[in-house]
Amino acid sequence: MKMTDQLSELSELPDTAQTSGTVQDEAQTKHWKEKQPGFTHFDSNGNALMVDVSEKADTVREALATGSIQVSDEVYQAVASGKVKKGDVLSIAAAAGIMGAKRTSELIPMCHILPLTGCRVWFEMEPQQKKIRCFCEVKITGKTGVEMEALTGVSTALLTIYDMCKAMDKSMEIGEIYLRRKTGGRSGEVLNHH
Amino acid sequence: MKMTDQLSELSELPDTAQTSGTVQDEAQTKHWKEKQPGFTHFDSNGNALMVDVSEKADTVREALATGSIQVSDEVYQAVASGKVKKGDVLSIAAAAGIMGAKRTSELIPMCHILPLTGCRVWFEMEPQQKKIRCFCEVKITGKTGVEMEALTGVSTALLTIYDMCKAMDKSMEIGEIYLRRKTGGRSGEVLNHH
Amino acid sequence: MKMTDQLSELSELPDTAQTSGTVQDEAQTKHWKEKQPGFTHFDSNGNALMVDVSEKADTVREALATGSIQVSDEVYQAVASGKVKKGDVLSIAAAAGIMGAKRTSELIPMCHILPLTGCRVWFEMEPQQKKIRCFCEVKITGKTGVEMEALTGVSTALLTIYDMCKAMDKSMEIGEIYLRRKTGGRSGEVLNHH
Amino acid sequence: MKMTDQLSELSELPDTAQTSGTVQDEAQTKHWKEKQPGFTHFDSNGNALMVDVSEKADTVREALATGSIQVSDEVYQAVASGKVKKGDVLSIAAAAGIMGAKRTSELIPMCHILPLTGCRVWFEMEPQQKKIRCFCEVKITGKTGVEMEALTGVSTALLTIYDMCKAMDKSMEIGEIYLRRKTGGRSGEVLNHH
Amino acid sequence: MKMTDQLSELSELPDTAQTSGTVQDEAQTKHWKEKQPGFTHFDSNGNALMVDVSEKADTVREALATGSIQVSDEVYQAVASGKVKKGDVLSIAAAAGIMGAKRTSELIPMCHILPLTGCRVWFEMEPQQKKIRCFCEVKITGKTGVEMEALTGVSTALLTIYDMCKAMDKSMEIGEIYLRRKTGGRSGEVLNHH
Amino acid sequence: MKMTDQLSELSELPDTAQTSGTVQDEAQTKHWKEKQPGFTHFDSNGNALMVDVSEKADTVREALATGSIQVSDEVYQAVASGKVKKGDVLSIAAAAGIMGAKRTSELIPMCHILPLTGCRVWFEMEPQQKKIRCFCEVKITGKTGVEMEALTGVSTALLTIYDMCKAMDKSMEIGEIYLRRKTGGRSGEVLNHH
Repeated sequence: MKMTDQLSELSELPDTAQTSGTVQDEAQTKHWKEKQPGFTHFDSNGNALMVDVSEKADTVREALATGSIQVSDEVYQAVASGKVKKGDVLSIAAAAGIMGAKRTSELIPMCHILPLTGCRVWFEMEPQQKKIRCFCEVKITGKTGVEMEALTGVSTALLTIYDMCKAMDKSMEIGEIYLRRKTGGRSGEVLNHH
Repeated sequence: MKMTDQLSELSELPDTAQTSGTVQDEAQTKHWKEKQPGFTHFDSNGNALMVDVSEKADTVREALATGSIQVSDEVYQAVASGKVKKGDVLSIAAAAGIMGAKRTSELIPMCHILPLTGCRVWFEMEPQQKKIRCFCEVKITGKTGVEMEALTGVSTALLTIYDMCKAMDKSMEIGEIYLRRKTGGRSGEVLNHH
Repeated sequence: MKMTDQLSELSELPDTAQTSGTVQDEAQTKHWKEKQPGFTHFDSNGNALMVDVSEKADTVREALATGSIQVSDEVYQAVASGKVKKGDVLSIAAAAGIMGAKRTSELIPMCHILPLTGCRVWFEMEPQQKKIRCFCEVKITGKTGVEMEALTGVSTALLTIYDMCKAMDKSMEIGEIYLRRKTGGRSGEVLNHH
Repeated sequence: MKMTDQLSELSELPDTAQTSGTVQDEAQTKHWKEKQPGFTHFDSNGNALMVDVSEKADTVREALATGSIQVSDEVYQAVASGKVKKGDVLSIAAAAGIMGAKRTSELIPMCHILPLTGCRVWFEMEPQQKKIRCFCEVKITGKTGVEMEALTGVSTALLTIYDMCKAMDKSMEIGEIYLRRKTGGRSGEVLNHH
Repeated sequence: MKMTDQLSELSELPDTAQTSGTVQDEAQTKHWKEKQPGFTHFDSNGNALMVDVSEKADTVREALATGSIQVSDEVYQAVASGKVKKGDVLSIAAAAGIMGAKRTSELIPMCHILPLTGCRVWFEMEPQQKKIRCFCEVKITGKTGVEMEALTGVSTALLTIYDMCKAMDKSMEIGEIYLRRKTGGRSGEVLNHH
Repeated sequence: MKMTDQLSELSELPDTAQTSGTVQDEAQTKHWKEKQPGFTHFDSNGNALMVDVSEKADTVREALATGSIQVSDEVYQAVASGKVKKGDVLSIAAAAGIMGAKRTSELIPMCHILPLTGCRVWFEMEPQQKKIRCFCEVKITGKTGVEMEALTGVSTALLTIYDMCKAMDKSMEIGEIYLRRKTGGRSGEVLNHH
């Protein structure tokens, strides 16, 4: 912020802040409201912040994210057969995806801690393209959305498949990770189909 | 439980006798060696495992992973301008990527805990394609490779960019995540260029 | 979400080997409802999931779990005397138990993240049996119960006692871990006494 | 829970050295109420506990904490110039502070898991004293306050500055960490200015 | 460090109520050596500590721990059938056990951070007793043993089974958790069979 | 890796806005060596990094950090009496400090994951100043120092005291946190006494 603002703002702080001194009130209130054009995760001074959602209502929110991993024939067959043989890559990857979704707020600096009310991960095999497609659906009754949780769940599940198959193939590629559907909250429903 | 029960019970195991003599030694050693065709993360009974690397030598190993995020014009400009303005999305994403790489073993079930000796994350802006490309390079002196750490670092950094820009664009796509280079260890050097 | 929304959304999914067309639509919509007989943590396709509790009411819930560790005379005396001497094993074990209860959702794949509203751990010395019995009581105002938190608190506290005493005795046994009492929620009150 | 339930349930407990019969019933029922004079984090038996806040109302609560790091001229100039040069220590420290605030309940044994609704960290440069002053403001709508989160955010941000500058100066000192302001909750507003 | 250094350094400490002058010097220098009878996790002042193993040699160490969960007929059948049906409780429990073993140092206050070189979890079904027995084997090349990791892996795996089956049975009991075998390190081989 | 490898590998990189052709090759190869004046945690492009210590020797390293908390008379008496009464604030704070030291690499973005070989926390009561002084000593045999671990241990222990006493006093101040002694490694011995 401009030094002058800061000095005036600071000279107010002693018996502080937040409550007395209009100059500072503005300074403070601007902090949480006014943002850089486009960004919600920086205040007017460019300080990164976890967006204040204190006033937002608790509503039911859902997000569905997707992503895929492109693998070799050998890997594809090995994973596909896992469903019938012992040693199921996908059930471990699904568990890892759900656990990853729960840890989103630890991984993504500005994400809120969200007590998810539901999460599931599932896969679809695409034999033609030799792809394994992952879906992660997350639900919450809360003040902010769960799209980052769904995207993190997908990423973690796909990385887990990569890890368990990398001895067979070191050129796998993870991609097509995006938000498929989002409902609840101010922004209403979002539907993507890439 | 009673010894007799156990012996009888154990003798049911596919040639394993847990408690007695050479029979068990074989059973045990097979557990860690013999795998399902292709898989290194399952033993001969289909139990997932963290691969035993106790006997492997400590060597210097490196991995470089890459990935990208496709964004809108608006996001691209906002992020690109961050380098000169206050509020730098990429410096926070780089920090998140490094922190994510350090937590790989918590996220990926069968990954070893690896005391990384170096990690860095950097980005390249691709104005034509409106992509931000991320690179994560990880080093270790250890018994096993760090490709999962590099891939996790890339994924976390890209998810962080997504999070900080999602108010502007809900159709961003993360992709092209793969291992670019790997050196050290038995498998020697690996080079990919997708 | 409204069924119709999901059906329309899902019908956009590309056909795949595993699920295709309307068959899948049904499979998908059933995911959160219909379970394998007995299991609540698998959907109708056998995918593990974190159970959806979005619709459940926030009620006050409590759980009390117990467990014990059987130790040698030497350990028993050393721990018992800790209360009066400097170096109190049990106060550290109690703290570890409370911290462990708070981390249940990180350890148990399908557990919800629950902002516990209260947790305490205490011990009872059983001189005849040379046992230290642990209790962990957890409270929450939420949509799902806290029995896993109470059981994880007990397990972590007992493991901590084991760790701090293992130099004296390597044959200690942890056991008798079960849910003693559970109140609140649909299943009403549960009382066990093994 | 209803007192009578607890009494009946507890009276089933086997007699033990530490607690027996009705004496214990009382001890137990008093556990959550009566505390050692002054302490809220110990029950009447001296067992540490996470305070029971189940009955407390959800109110909007805020806390502002502050702290500083005293550095050398060289460090001060290097950090101050970071705002204009590439490589911004403070933006990484701010992100670390926010992430640290989110992990308070993992670090401080008796802290509740709190889904923070907002958090921001900012710095003020004090050229005369060669100090960097850190502020962390945390918000929540919940049953208990967030002063520990704010203090942990400040501590983590200052430690991060220390880490990134320690190659230049090994005699930096972190201090003046205290609660500047606290609003919401039973204790009403708290204002400190040291 | 050299003793003389420490003495000189410590003699600079301001006198204090708790420790003063040469008395303290001795107390300090004894800290890492002399322990309370029996305890290795407390210094001579009763301060808990993570035992100093800096001087110990890196050797290959293994630990095998076991434990069981007693379940109802219904649960036993449901879990046993999981191997052939979709939805495998045990493969998720095994993954959770391995992940839990990796997090031992976060859960058990005085445990060292150990970069495990191998870990696996497997189960044995005991149809007569309606028990599921869990084994966790951990390996490391390091300065201290991994029995706590093996015991934590077993506990986490059994808690995961409990969680996934608790809708069917709320009276399951986890027990018989002990160290089955330990090799490597000063204490040589340990074998238990309860 | 061999420079030539890297150059050839990097020259394959697509031209980009930020870096192109041989310019970038140099930029890349300089990344790990050349730093901004003073900073070790930024490369020549201003990207934060975890410093590469792969080539450094494993040596025994120690760090001793200190810090204090200024409390009220009431708090001071309550804490001091804890040593004799049940409910020991300091034993819990010491455990929290050790656990915090172990988690330094999760909290401080550019800190290495370090398998500490020893850690202890102790306190000194200063009756005149109504201060509780904390010390944390950390040891490792490794490639980089542990001063951040010692400082994080002190900070966490002091925050834990604050938390357990805050019901009595909301104006406590944590300060005087600095590195007291550091041995091992290139920088040799460091001794501070503020």
